[in-house]
Amino acid sequence: MQIVNNKDTDWSYVIGSYKQPVASIKPGEVFKIETLDAFGNKVDSSTSDITKLIQMPYVNPLTGPIYVEGAKKGDALAVKIISIEAARDYGVSAIIPEFGGLCATPLTRTLNDPLPPRVMIHPIENDSVIFSKDLNIAPIPFEPFYGTIGTSPEIEAVSSLSPGNHGGNMDAADVCPGNTIILPVNVDGGLLYIGDGHAAQGDAEVCGVATEIPTLGTLRVELIKGLYLRNPRVESNEFIMTIGSARPMEDAARIAFYELIMWLQDDYGIEKLIAYQLCSQVARVRLANMVDTLYSVVAKFPKKYLPKLN
Amino acid sequence: MQIVNNKDTDWSYVIGSYKQPVASIKPGEVFKIETLDAFGNKVDSSTSDITKLIQMPYVNPLTGPIYVEGAKKGDALAVKIISIEAARDYGVSAIIPEFGGLCATPLTRTLNDPLPPRVMIHPIENDSVIFSKDLNIAPIPFEPFYGTIGTSPEIEAVSSLSPGNHGGNMDAADVCPGNTIILPVNVDGGLLYIGDGHAAQGDAEVCGVATEIPTLGTLRVELIKGLYLRNPRVESNEFIMTIGSARPMEDAARIAFYELIMWLQDDYGIEKLIAYQLCSQVARVRLANMVDTLYSVVAKFPKKYLPKLN
Amino acid sequence: MQIVNNKDTDWSYVIGSYKQPVASIKPGEVFKIETLDAFGNKVDSSTSDITKLIQMPYVNPLTGPIYVEGAKKGDALAVKIISIEAARDYGVSAIIPEFGGLCATPLTRTLNDPLPPRVMIHPIENDSVIFSKDLNIAPIPFEPFYGTIGTSPEIEAVSSLSPGNHGGNMDAADVCPGNTIILPVNVDGGLLYIGDGHAAQGDAEVCGVATEIPTLGTLRVELIKGLYLRNPRVESNEFIMTIGSARPMEDAARIAFYELIMWLQDDYGIEKLIAYQLCSQVARVRLANMVDTLYSVVAKFPKKYLPKLN
Amino acid sequence: MQIVNNKDTDWSYVIGSYKQPVASIKPGEVFKIETLDAFGNKVDSSTSDITKLIQMPYVNPLTGPIYVEGAKKGDALAVKIISIEAARDYGVSAIIPEFGGLCATPLTRTLNDPLPPRVMIHPIENDSVIFSKDLNIAPIPFEPFYGTIGTSPEIEAVSSLSPGNHGGNMDAADVCPGNTIILPVNVDGGLLYIGDGHAAQGDAEVCGVATEIPTLGTLRVELIKGLYLRNPRVESNEFIMTIGSARPMEDAARIAFYELIMWLQDDYGIEKLIAYQLCSQVARVRLANMVDTLYSVVAKFPKKYLPKLN
Repeated sequence: MQIVNNKDTDWSYVIGSYKQPVASIKPGEVFKIETLDAFGNKVDSSTSDITKLIQMPYVNPLTGPIYVEGAKKGDALAVKIISIEAARDYGVSAIIPEFGGLCATPLTRTLNDPLPPRVMIHPIENDSVIFSKDLNIAPIPFEPFYGTIGTSPEIEAVSSLSPGNHGGNMDAADVCPGNTIILPVNVDGGLLYIGDGHAAQGDAEVCGVATEIPTLGTLRVELIKGLYLRNPRVESNEFIMTIGSARPMEDAARIAFYELIMWLQDDYGIEKLIAYQLCSQVARVRLANMVDTLYSVVAKFPKKYLPKLN
Repeated sequence: MQIVNNKDTDWSYVIGSYKQPVASIKPGEVFKIETLDAFGNKVDSSTSDITKLIQMPYVNPLTGPIYVEGAKKGDALAVKIISIEAARDYGVSAIIPEFGGLCATPLTRTLNDPLPPRVMIHPIENDSVIFSKDLNIAPIPFEPFYGTIGTSPEIEAVSSLSPGNHGGNMDAADVCPGNTIILPVNVDGGLLYIGDGHAAQGDAEVCGVATEIPTLGTLRVELIKGLYLRNPRVESNEFIMTIGSARPMEDAARIAFYELIMWLQDDYGIEKLIAYQLCSQVARVRLANMVDTLYSVVAKFPKKYLPKLN
Repeated sequence: MQIVNNKDTDWSYVIGSYKQPVASIKPGEVFKIETLDAFGNKVDSSTSDITKLIQMPYVNPLTGPIYVEGAKKGDALAVKIISIEAARDYGVSAIIPEFGGLCATPLTRTLNDPLPPRVMIHPIENDSVIFSKDLNIAPIPFEPFYGTIGTSPEIEAVSSLSPGNHGGNMDAADVCPGNTIILPVNVDGGLLYIGDGHAAQGDAEVCGVATEIPTLGTLRVELIKGLYLRNPRVESNEFIMTIGSARPMEDAARIAFYELIMWLQDDYGIEKLIAYQLCSQVARVRLANMVDTLYSVVAKFPKKYLPKLN
Repeated sequence: MQIVNNKDTDWSYVIGSYKQPVASIKPGEVFKIETLDAFGNKVDSSTSDITKLIQMPYVNPLTGPIYVEGAKKGDALAVKIISIEAARDYGVSAIIPEFGGLCATPLTRTLNDPLPPRVMIHPIENDSVIFSKDLNIAPIPFEPFYGTIGTSPEIEAVSSLSPGNHGGNMDAADVCPGNTIILPVNVDGGLLYIGDGHAAQGDAEVCGVATEIPTLGTLRVELIKGLYLRNPRVESNEFIMTIGSARPMEDAARIAFYELIMWLQDDYGIEKLIAYQLCSQVARVRLANMVDTLYSVVAKFPKKYLPKLN
């Protein structure tokens, strides 16, 4: 089985079409993928100086681009995540002085003094994450997902720290084993990038950092010819989902719900204004992150309320 | 048992201290409360002309104010919701032309033509809401809650359509039977207002209207002396929760998480920056509404991760 | 000539209809009005402890309500500002720890430490404001205006710190001598409130405080029967203007431009989409404040580009 | 004198470092530059179908990149605009269905029907722009500027439609003859891009389109070694200015004011909190655009209030 990584080249800090593919896969092929953690595996102690180890813009290294054979602009890639393993026995979280949801940042600029940096090391044991050996807090289930997954825009090269219509750094816990992420193809081969494994994460990823881990994943990518997407979709057993990434956060929510409603109209025959009214009764929402250059919101429609076709 | 309603006076369209209480209750007293639906029970058919039946600002009539004996500025009210029954065998939802999450509104003004109005009547049968007899969609569980609950600000009188630090029209499904809502007291007696019953509602209440019902509820209000709150809190068996209401939506999320973190520090001894980092791993978020004059976000901390005290 | 003030009653900290008028005026009558500064004239030294002198919500005392004879819901008031004098030989500005455009606030909540408080006293001499006797900075022209002017909403009572559709704390330097402010009437008598005199202010009022002064003003109020307004308008010799107050700031700008365009269509016969395209070539914008509970944006159309009628 | 254009290669639709320079200039060298209009000079009639002529993402073609000899990461480029001539005797404006400040867009998504497209041709005669030969509207002064000017980010390639820390599509009328635009250098040679000439534009560019023209400009670029900038600056005879680009709009204003205040502290010795308080009395603001993927706000400090150095 093919094992994809960027060990023989540079890791990718943008998602775009200006770099040679590191691997080529066939639709339907099962393959392995190795990813570094968001800090390039460089933070290994609670005494690490994260303000030195992180040098913008070289944060959140991604594996890729992966060329998918036959993919052309106007198609979509359906990425089935079969499994994600932690490639290390601990995760890392941190407070980064001008990054996060409850502090001044380069976008929400203020004159207040920045927060102090801090690193925490979280052991991963028995399918659990230990937040702190000192604090008497119950173990957190190991529920891994990819914080970052995306395909190349047509002409832009987007920071691996940013989400967008192309996917990217959405920090959506729905990008997890068992689910399928459907991404637009804008250039030949689609050019898939993946990284930013999380062993655990709360909704909103409020301090800006989850339990960051390197991973070994198993994936299968299907090619959907002629499915034009404006934004990423996700499918699980329970939900069909769409992800909007924008600022302010209401615009992210508007995008996600607009796409969900158009999907209900296009594929399930529910006229869009009825779908709008129905979503108002049964939809679920995940606030994926409130910390990145754009915020990401997942709008979720429970499959049990899809019209029963005869 | 006392039954509180506004039948002998006007229903309340603002939350404030300028109206005589309709009832007085003692802390710990169990009482009943009757509420109209958000349209004043005036919409009863899918052919109702909602643009005529709704005359701003006389929308979302509330029951109250209720005077709580002994409540003084600086205290808090803990409102335990024991039960909520539908006082009618159907709910109403609607599309209102310049109201909702995916349309131009008086706040997000555009030159596009408005959406067409529409009313749907949703039968309530066997603890389920029937979205439509025509569409083949599974019944939605009857999960009632109050869209609006709040206490009087000190000097302002706030539209019953608006949420805020005082609670109000938050549309948070966590304001449901079994849970306790904790609200600030800013004036003598607290002056509690309740209304806007929902038989079902999706996260975000995206079209602006849930399955609206009149209700008969059973409540008990406890007085917490000397608990100063900036914003509403909710407690369930599973979560401690805080609610922020603001625009843009990220400010609502910031308020909710700030209050959750300060609560974790003040009552559970987790230093605030550690609480921040912990929430980033385990918190949950409900987007309560993306449609009102302010948006409401619920930040939720799972009680299972509270420090175990010895 | 009538001199209006609140010396025989309380100053007003909300704009609403729940307080008895302090004066009644006839349309066309010229009258004087006295206002306190935003701090109730209580800050008189650079060593004043502003965090003690300001006790929320009792900030920004207003003069009023003033009852305008004959005003009914659906009319408008045209308030001509004839003159504004400083009623003191100095102005006050300040940094207030959790208030302002470049710091964490109760709405944009963060965990950063607050800014330190500071008061500056600015002498007013020879029609100039002296920012600092120590710093070698050129005198600032004395260009007084009212930071706050508004009429009562129909049922709400709005904090004097907040702007809105009713006017209020807009901090728009266009509310100055020579100009006419046109406000909606929502209740009998209109109920006009005025205060928050500024001797000088930059666009955006970025630290949240201008050069605050008590004032003696001379006004004339005309009644415009049957002019329904959703938002305040201003007229000067050079511009017709509309003011939008909302968050996020783009919504304030949307409201202001929408109203400007509808005004161009309704009164000047420029079809709204042409007016939209024309504004894109010639409009001017003032960012009035980026610090209040809502932000205020003034959209300005130069009268020289109004269609010349024959 | 060197004449720079992209006639022998493709025009640039992203600002980045992945394309070969089209010219190399020496610091201090005066050169000419030719730019196409934002529609690639393809719209020449009021009956042009703009929805067909514009094919995303190939909009707003830029001239460049221009390599500046000696420029290294951490330096800055000071671009003096000596003159801008219209290279055509008319400008073009348009309504583009899902683009603009007062309509639903791909970011502020709604279910409302889109606005209809429309093109207007504006003759340029005698240093004036004629908005319409039919409407009796006074001529608009020809006041040309570049809507787009920027330098390459370090690793990203940003759409020519987007502004940002690198400059880009800011639509700031201060980027005009007589003024100097100072931009960060992130890569060798800086890699300057220019385009999007406007013959006239209102603040906010509210419909999303100014009076678009191809241009012939004359420029001189100076290299400022060791001046690290986070965001663009502009200098005129009257003002020092900083530009912030972000969403929501208040974040753009925060960035602009933060940078202005730090500039006042770093270069003029005004301690930052005093500069904050001073800006609150004397600053001016231009809302440059409220229509692009990010909004741009210009914070302006009048030079007459700079401390007089002895």
